[in-house]
Amino acid sequence: MLPFVYRRLGFMGSREAYRDADLVLLGVPMDYTVSFQPGSRFGPQAIRSVSDALEEYSFYQHGSLAEVAFFDAGDVDLPFGNVEASLERIRAVARAVHGDGKIPIALGGEHLVTLPLVQAAKEFFPELAVFHFDAHADLREEYLGEKLSHATVMYQVANLVGPDHLYQFGIRSGTAEEYRYGQERTNFFPHAILDPLQQVIDRWDGRPVYVSIDIDVVDPAFAPGTGTPEPGGCSSEEMLQALLLLMRLPVVAMDIVEVLPAQDVSQRTALLAAKLVREALIGFHLRKEKTFDRKGTV
Amino acid sequence: MLPFVYRRLGFMGSREAYRDADLVLLGVPMDYTVSFQPGSRFGPQAIRSVSDALEEYSFYQHGSLAEVAFFDAGDVDLPFGNVEASLERIRAVARAVHGDGKIPIALGGEHLVTLPLVQAAKEFFPELAVFHFDAHADLREEYLGEKLSHATVMYQVANLVGPDHLYQFGIRSGTAEEYRYGQERTNFFPHAILDPLQQVIDRWDGRPVYVSIDIDVVDPAFAPGTGTPEPGGCSSEEMLQALLLLMRLPVVAMDIVEVLPAQDVSQRTALLAAKLVREALIGFHLRKEKTFDRKGTV
Amino acid sequence: MLPFVYRRLGFMGSREAYRDADLVLLGVPMDYTVSFQPGSRFGPQAIRSVSDALEEYSFYQHGSLAEVAFFDAGDVDLPFGNVEASLERIRAVARAVHGDGKIPIALGGEHLVTLPLVQAAKEFFPELAVFHFDAHADLREEYLGEKLSHATVMYQVANLVGPDHLYQFGIRSGTAEEYRYGQERTNFFPHAILDPLQQVIDRWDGRPVYVSIDIDVVDPAFAPGTGTPEPGGCSSEEMLQALLLLMRLPVVAMDIVEVLPAQDVSQRTALLAAKLVREALIGFHLRKEKTFDRKGTV
Amino acid sequence: MLPFVYRRLGFMGSREAYRDADLVLLGVPMDYTVSFQPGSRFGPQAIRSVSDALEEYSFYQHGSLAEVAFFDAGDVDLPFGNVEASLERIRAVARAVHGDGKIPIALGGEHLVTLPLVQAAKEFFPELAVFHFDAHADLREEYLGEKLSHATVMYQVANLVGPDHLYQFGIRSGTAEEYRYGQERTNFFPHAILDPLQQVIDRWDGRPVYVSIDIDVVDPAFAPGTGTPEPGGCSSEEMLQALLLLMRLPVVAMDIVEVLPAQDVSQRTALLAAKLVREALIGFHLRKEKTFDRKGTV
Amino acid sequence: MLPFVYRRLGFMGSREAYRDADLVLLGVPMDYTVSFQPGSRFGPQAIRSVSDALEEYSFYQHGSLAEVAFFDAGDVDLPFGNVEASLERIRAVARAVHGDGKIPIALGGEHLVTLPLVQAAKEFFPELAVFHFDAHADLREEYLGEKLSHATVMYQVANLVGPDHLYQFGIRSGTAEEYRYGQERTNFFPHAILDPLQQVIDRWDGRPVYVSIDIDVVDPAFAPGTGTPEPGGCSSEEMLQALLLLMRLPVVAMDIVEVLPAQDVSQRTALLAAKLVREALIGFHLRKEKTFDRKGTV
Amino acid sequence: MLPFVYRRLGFMGSREAYRDADLVLLGVPMDYTVSFQPGSRFGPQAIRSVSDALEEYSFYQHGSLAEVAFFDAGDVDLPFGNVEASLERIRAVARAVHGDGKIPIALGGEHLVTLPLVQAAKEFFPELAVFHFDAHADLREEYLGEKLSHATVMYQVANLVGPDHLYQFGIRSGTAEEYRYGQERTNFFPHAILDPLQQVIDRWDGRPVYVSIDIDVVDPAFAPGTGTPEPGGCSSEEMLQALLLLMRLPVVAMDIVEVLPAQDVSQRTALLAAKLVREALIGFHLRKEKTFDRKGTV
Repeated sequence: MLPFVYRRLGFMGSREAYRDADLVLLGVPMDYTVSFQPGSRFGPQAIRSVSDALEEYSFYQHGSLAEVAFFDAGDVDLPFGNVEASLERIRAVARAVHGDGKIPIALGGEHLVTLPLVQAAKEFFPELAVFHFDAHADLREEYLGEKLSHATVMYQVANLVGPDHLYQFGIRSGTAEEYRYGQERTNFFPHAILDPLQQVIDRWDGRPVYVSIDIDVVDPAFAPGTGTPEPGGCSSEEMLQALLLLMRLPVVAMDIVEVLPAQDVSQRTALLAAKLVREALIGFHLRKEKTFDRKGTV
Repeated sequence: MLPFVYRRLGFMGSREAYRDADLVLLGVPMDYTVSFQPGSRFGPQAIRSVSDALEEYSFYQHGSLAEVAFFDAGDVDLPFGNVEASLERIRAVARAVHGDGKIPIALGGEHLVTLPLVQAAKEFFPELAVFHFDAHADLREEYLGEKLSHATVMYQVANLVGPDHLYQFGIRSGTAEEYRYGQERTNFFPHAILDPLQQVIDRWDGRPVYVSIDIDVVDPAFAPGTGTPEPGGCSSEEMLQALLLLMRLPVVAMDIVEVLPAQDVSQRTALLAAKLVREALIGFHLRKEKTFDRKGTV
Repeated sequence: MLPFVYRRLGFMGSREAYRDADLVLLGVPMDYTVSFQPGSRFGPQAIRSVSDALEEYSFYQHGSLAEVAFFDAGDVDLPFGNVEASLERIRAVARAVHGDGKIPIALGGEHLVTLPLVQAAKEFFPELAVFHFDAHADLREEYLGEKLSHATVMYQVANLVGPDHLYQFGIRSGTAEEYRYGQERTNFFPHAILDPLQQVIDRWDGRPVYVSIDIDVVDPAFAPGTGTPEPGGCSSEEMLQALLLLMRLPVVAMDIVEVLPAQDVSQRTALLAAKLVREALIGFHLRKEKTFDRKGTV
Repeated sequence: MLPFVYRRLGFMGSREAYRDADLVLLGVPMDYTVSFQPGSRFGPQAIRSVSDALEEYSFYQHGSLAEVAFFDAGDVDLPFGNVEASLERIRAVARAVHGDGKIPIALGGEHLVTLPLVQAAKEFFPELAVFHFDAHADLREEYLGEKLSHATVMYQVANLVGPDHLYQFGIRSGTAEEYRYGQERTNFFPHAILDPLQQVIDRWDGRPVYVSIDIDVVDPAFAPGTGTPEPGGCSSEEMLQALLLLMRLPVVAMDIVEVLPAQDVSQRTALLAAKLVREALIGFHLRKEKTFDRKGTV
Repeated sequence: MLPFVYRRLGFMGSREAYRDADLVLLGVPMDYTVSFQPGSRFGPQAIRSVSDALEEYSFYQHGSLAEVAFFDAGDVDLPFGNVEASLERIRAVARAVHGDGKIPIALGGEHLVTLPLVQAAKEFFPELAVFHFDAHADLREEYLGEKLSHATVMYQVANLVGPDHLYQFGIRSGTAEEYRYGQERTNFFPHAILDPLQQVIDRWDGRPVYVSIDIDVVDPAFAPGTGTPEPGGCSSEEMLQALLLLMRLPVVAMDIVEVLPAQDVSQRTALLAAKLVREALIGFHLRKEKTFDRKGTV
Repeated sequence: MLPFVYRRLGFMGSREAYRDADLVLLGVPMDYTVSFQPGSRFGPQAIRSVSDALEEYSFYQHGSLAEVAFFDAGDVDLPFGNVEASLERIRAVARAVHGDGKIPIALGGEHLVTLPLVQAAKEFFPELAVFHFDAHADLREEYLGEKLSHATVMYQVANLVGPDHLYQFGIRSGTAEEYRYGQERTNFFPHAILDPLQQVIDRWDGRPVYVSIDIDVVDPAFAPGTGTPEPGGCSSEEMLQALLLLMRLPVVAMDIVEVLPAQDVSQRTALLAAKLVREALIGFHLRKEKTFDRKGTV
């Protein structure tokens, strides 16, 4: 109708319709159980917004978003302040995406959103393993009296998939109890990222994988825009390399969480998240393995 | 023990012990039902922090904090993300302060905290009226499906004290339903502050008064540090004048809410809140009317 | 398809399709002829983004966006750095909107975009008058050797519609030559806004009107997010009142320009612009005068 | 030598050489006795830097900097941390300017710099009166044990010129002792600016005048970039009007202090200071009264 | 004339006159063809301003600016918005510097300014090779329909000096076409900096070299103040080491571009650029090779 | 008294009383001799404030603050602007802490505060050696004519403990004189941190050690919040590793200085300092060596 006019339709290169997509981006703007700085509800929109500053083509995998059939579905509409109703809605949306044979890639929001996302994935992939990148163990049984919190989410996930199917990388903060639990129960790799990831991948048995990336696994020099920055993490480049390694696994769902625009002055945290999303979209596309059976076998 | 050393003990001039105080400052760091920008949980600490930049003496009332027996009790310890448990704790603390015959002055935090604070005051002062300063009507029956929200708080308060005992000043935003409810049921003064306040005070019958100041009643030029700034409000000076007028009423409890430090670059919103607190403390002291009977009579 | 999910489609309340609209919002992200701080290209997106923080209902006019048939068409796709090609595209889009009998409301971007927008309006409304709100006269014949510049735009507009059909309000900065030209040729009201506007409106002869609001007419206390802030302007409230007065005129096109998000820390400049847009949309709707004949008669 | 190249030489329009000037701008980057936020040492450079965004022509006085013979001398080179040696240097420079029959206009820096500047002016104009615009009385005898402090400067000035020749406008903060001293000894106008200034000017006896403007007399909405912002002040426009009134007096020296760029996000405080400087330069030029005898008579 | 006063004359240690210099600093404040964030026009002034925070002495090369005969010529005076006229002026200034047998060091501004700078150098050094450090390939034939753009500049440069004389380091973003062109035509080293640079230098044949450093080759953690930050780059230390290596080549002109102060909160990007300038100035001085014949032979 | 209420009492986990502590935290809010950006006076309070975002447990040393008997004594009350009186007070407090057999850990504030802290330590530990981590040598004899300055502090310290007992790590900026002095007189390790530190520790003879960490030794990417950032430093992780190495020495006092909150947008500099404090507190506790005799022998 109007000449020369464009309307922003989400993450760059998003298809216009859900049905045309194999991969579905989903904003999850929840941030109310955090203990320090809230505001990650604006994370998904910031990641979309900065995506315009990136190229569609990847110098890492030599593919382009232009070839990837993905759809940015927008944000889940959440009842702010109601934790349980919010988790229920997130779970319902993820379940719908899996039900349509598509791969959901969720953008947080706080880390608690990983719980309903894993619950939904687990319904379709009962053998699910979870790969968790984070500065914090998130393994508390409860936090300030609450079982559902950004600080307890991986304890809940461990209960759901079994602690021996939880792989934790880059952890450098937690309580003594969390450290002990991690050491004894989960596959726990404090501080390091790339070396243990390479080793785990080399021996992988083919189980379907859920990937959860808390952006604060990256050092606050590279990712200042997050709610509980913890000095001493990896670089952006290392996280990018880790993502490329993950592309060798049968990943069936993924999230990138805890991007907090209010602290992200040069927008480089959102840019890093957008670049990780781009590489994931291209990586999923390149492996030509868009769906998996319930054991994760292609 | 150590020479030349001082330890910050809260708002400037705070007594060292609760028992020595007639007036009690209380931080209420809740911010999880807000629909736009969260982060007012850091409001109370910011107000304390900037209070050092103000003088103890008031050029408006010619009294000094040095003469006022007040205690800054610190913050209520809240289970982040659990709305009902948080409101219960706030109510319990306020009830304790009233039970000891002291006046609580709460620093938010989001506006929903006014509900338990009014509930507690109402237990001790059944004839309570509420004076509400805000850019927003906050009169929704529910918001995003929730009855307990920063956008519904004054509807709840109206139900509690009776809409005819709710006085609303400076309102310049809301739905058509809220506007109609305000016009028909409460004492509703959109846009204006000082003139209607003066008129209400001139005819006051002596009921005890709860004062709730959402800092966004002030224009964002003067108070940028707030979650949902709304252009077109009053100036700092007008709000200060309003507070001085309020000192003529039998105020039995008060709150100042929605200060959001993350948006408060020059700290002037926190400074305005701190100055309002200083004037309230001095005003309560000067009227020599520290407690009221259940009808608000001195 | 997906439950509980929403996709941002521009300014709040925008219809989904162009054909359903009487009023058309248009982003014009041009900012390359400015002499001080560039970056207003991000203005339209910022105004859309903050519009979520406002209500659809107006406490000023008692109407709601929910009843207004408007469409946010997105941004004009500009060849960055090519001034003439950019102006040509803007003119083409505006011409298309007028050609469909709709009213364009453009969001800048720098002030030079007003020239092609007025050119397009003039084609359809030959008797066009222009109302110009600005801190700066923008009446230079050339600037740094260029005839097409944010500093020359009103000189060009005066040549187009005739200086006696240009009304300038709130001007407080310019060269001696601009001041003289304004005093001698245009309807020139330095410093003041509301009083002269009221007088002009009271005597209006019915000509169709183009309204151009450079947000820097408002004092930088209220509108800090702009490229060349000039202390000593009007308040947000005064600009809102001016807009309500303008709704009595046969306005056929409008722009709000020079919102610069990088300097707009608390987002109050974008919020003011969004509120002016909301009032304009509601005002155009309420007057039930959606189109005008070529002389501006309804 | 090189074509098309320009080198910034200080405040816009500054002459190239000291000898060509009647008026001398002087940066005074001292900020070490302040009690709250330091950093005003960068004030002079910020004021110069933003001056490029203003026009040389004044819409208020209808004169232009292009006609004014002024020289921006740069900054006084201070031994950071050594208060007494710094004050001595400032006094020496100001004395040199007065000795050459020129008018110094100093840009702070903290308010203590006014003391040596007044001392130097007093040597040449023994009948000197001081006009002081400030949010704070600055009348303490000592501050944290120090007699030389930004909080004691006007007490020192009062001792020097006599409290009855000190005129204080807009004061809204201080101790009880300062208030009493002001009320009893100086010409003390708390809160107000324009009305008392008009009255004082109307009755002026012709004494030479030193003008000291602490930018925090202006409300932090209009002037956020300052070290101890105090809500409740005047607007930018009122301060501009006050400056225009002052141009009727035989002003022989002037300072504008306490501009703090680190808090001045939209640069509007520096812009206001630059605009006040421009108006002062043009005002001094227009009155054709560049020097005064020792009693201030032209 | 005045005691104790200093006037900032550009980059620290700059001589007072052009004729005394072997090396000439030149600000090039152009930023109008950029596609994402404009504002690098303020880069040169920011680099000068922060240079005061550095020492004149280098711990890397053990020389001092105090011994270097350089002149900071100020900024090229550009007609904002007119791309071709701007490029012409830049070319003219650079030609004049080369014509006087001096080495120009340009501070951007956007990357397109490299084109006229290389054109001018090529006139004097026909055998010129170009070393390009950047996150982006800048090898497009056209961008948004324009041939002259920050995204096409290296394609133009390749055409000028021959793609086989273009060396590109650290590139990590571009289109598929740019990647292919780089791989096939230029000396293209994606991602890496130091290793390939060392290898190229070890085999250098003595051709004269133009060095162009887009500061975004450095990771945004170290250089956040730039218009299109791209996560995954080198560190500040690596870029400093690269510069020291470059000092072994017969460099005849150089630029550092895309410093954007508005995003450079801690000023560390401008500081890095200033440090690179200092090292280049000292390096050029130490090699005692201030001019080269047309083949770059000393 | 009041339920559910907590009052912030300094660095997380601080005991309530001085007498219960072996380790004493001390804020030293002095910043008036700095030559570039002041404001580190707010450093101690910022470090306390962000400490809430860290865990009490260390993943590095596997101990917890909960077991450490330390007391946060608050800030030294300084006469702002009076350098000598300030140093005297700092010395007096440190002397009192040592006199009580406790270890002081000071938080700056500018680097000059290290002088009185070392003086006090030297009184109790005459064989004292000093380990100095910094980007700057701080070895000037005088600076801007002053002997007491942030730029001269290590020259003074060298005179006090003997240059052969001063160990300097990570230095990358200074004058030629400072470089020569360091090379000839102190144990001078420019640029590097971990390797030389390891070597020094391996050969340590048991002397008591004072540790002074200027946070700007860390690269501004990791520690942007400091007054004179210098690109090219170590990472946060390297500084953490250095601190763990230092825990093997008989450290008897320590400081962390030059944290400047106004430049510390994401608070990561304060967080790094807080984490270093936490590790030091836990490290001191774990070695069970809380006091030393005058030769540093346990």
